Amino acid sequence: MLRHVVLFTWDDAVDDQRRESTVAALARLPEEVGGMTAFTVGPDAGLAEGNAQTALVADFPDVDAWRRYAQHPRHLEVIAEHVRPFLASRTAVQFEV
Amino acid sequence: MLRHVVLFTWDDAVDDQRRESTVAALARLPEEVGGMTAFTVGPDAGLAEGNAQTALVADFPDVDAWRRYAQHPRHLEVIAEHVRPFLASRTAVQFEV
Repeated sequence: MLRHVVLFTWDDAVDDQRRESTVAALARLPEEVGGMTAFTVGPDAGLAEGNAQTALVADFPDVDAWRRYAQHPRHLEVIAEHVRPFLASRTAVQFEV
Repeated sequence: MLRHVVLFTWDDAVDDQRRESTVAALARLPEEVGGMTAFTVGPDAGLAEGNAQTALVADFPDVDAWRRYAQHPRHLEVIAEHVRPFLASRTAVQFEV
């Protein structure tokens, strides 16, 4: 199983409402794109200094399933519309679990 | 449940063997520290450009359990001995799932 992890930090100009709608758009990916066996997304809980602001962890049966998700038109649309315009930085890893 | 996610990028000077022993030390945290309900750690699979190099995802019943883990002497020891000396960058989020 492949675990896909992305941590997002948003531009300072991005307000709470915008962040929430981005997280909501990401949260719709399982129903709009699918292919994952597990999917969690949410805001940092504010427990530690210097953290990123949003995390996404999604599990896929294999690399091919992850590639279909990553290249899916709707996924690319959500990234273009709800993520890239507001992004300060993004860190990701895909690893076998 | 609180999900703790950390993505690590290591110094260029850190060779594969050193990275593997760091991941092995992190992988011993469940038995040496405990308190988590799930724990995965591993190297990036090399599927995308610009990724970090190692990911750790651990689930805790609640914030207090995560704090006990974070402040546990053995956890601090592993960080001091196997992580901090080799680290180029670290990104983390804790979020409710």
